[in-house]
Amino acid sequence: MTFSLHERLAADTVPVWTLDLSHVLLMRDARWPWLILVPARAGVTEIHQLDQTDRGRLIEEAAQAGRVLERLFSPDKVNVGALGNMVPQLHVHVIARRRDDPAWPGPVWGHGAAEPYAPDALSRRIEDLRAALG
Amino acid sequence: MTFSLHERLAADTVPVWTLDLSHVLLMRDARWPWLILVPARAGVTEIHQLDQTDRGRLIEEAAQAGRVLERLFSPDKVNVGALGNMVPQLHVHVIARRRDDPAWPGPVWGHGAAEPYAPDALSRRIEDLRAALG
Repeated sequence: MTFSLHERLAADTVPVWTLDLSHVLLMRDARWPWLILVPARAGVTEIHQLDQTDRGRLIEEAAQAGRVLERLFSPDKVNVGALGNMVPQLHVHVIARRRDDPAWPGPVWGHGAAEPYAPDALSRRIEDLRAALG
Repeated sequence: MTFSLHERLAADTVPVWTLDLSHVLLMRDARWPWLILVPARAGVTEIHQLDQTDRGRLIEEAAQAGRVLERLFSPDKVNVGALGNMVPQLHVHVIARRRDDPAWPGPVWGHGAAEPYAPDALSRRIEDLRAALG
């Protein structure tokens, strides 16, 4: 099985960076700085299906993404989640949350409709994230 | 700082087991088999605040919890999440989801009111989980 990105993940995100294990994507939703890590492993839907080495990589990459969001956006909380109820391909959300954000203190998943970035704002955000991840 | 369980986590859960890093708790909510791992580290609110060794332990324990839920409940999906918007103490949810559960495909957090277990059902569930984790 060859790794390829699930079409819904591809449609909802912009590619930002590639880490040792995971592709880093940015959600096309300006309401939150919202990253998604997708381990480049075909056919995996659950964290426990990765081998232990890849699991170690995954949590290090989630921690790195959390630190980057903290540095760039000073959130009140970072939310990390691997749900996969809609898109089975294993992916980990890492989201910067603020007490005054539209869904606080609830989860962001399923909350209202995504708000597109202005093109300039999207380019700037991707640049900032690349600089911080690289 | 001494480790102690946040009072809201203590009130909403029943202790099930203790792993190398984390206390394993069962949510008092019969709608879902729902475990919570709480790393026994004082003052930690984010995954990236753990050291790398503890992060490795945490993802191994989350994987173990996911495997146990899979074995006992044959879920359609396991959801794993560290949110902490309500309870800052670092804790990781590991939840068995089914396509016919009351919140599918949405997240369980903030969905309706918890449904208490019947006392017998709670004891049986804890016994089953202990046997599977031990």
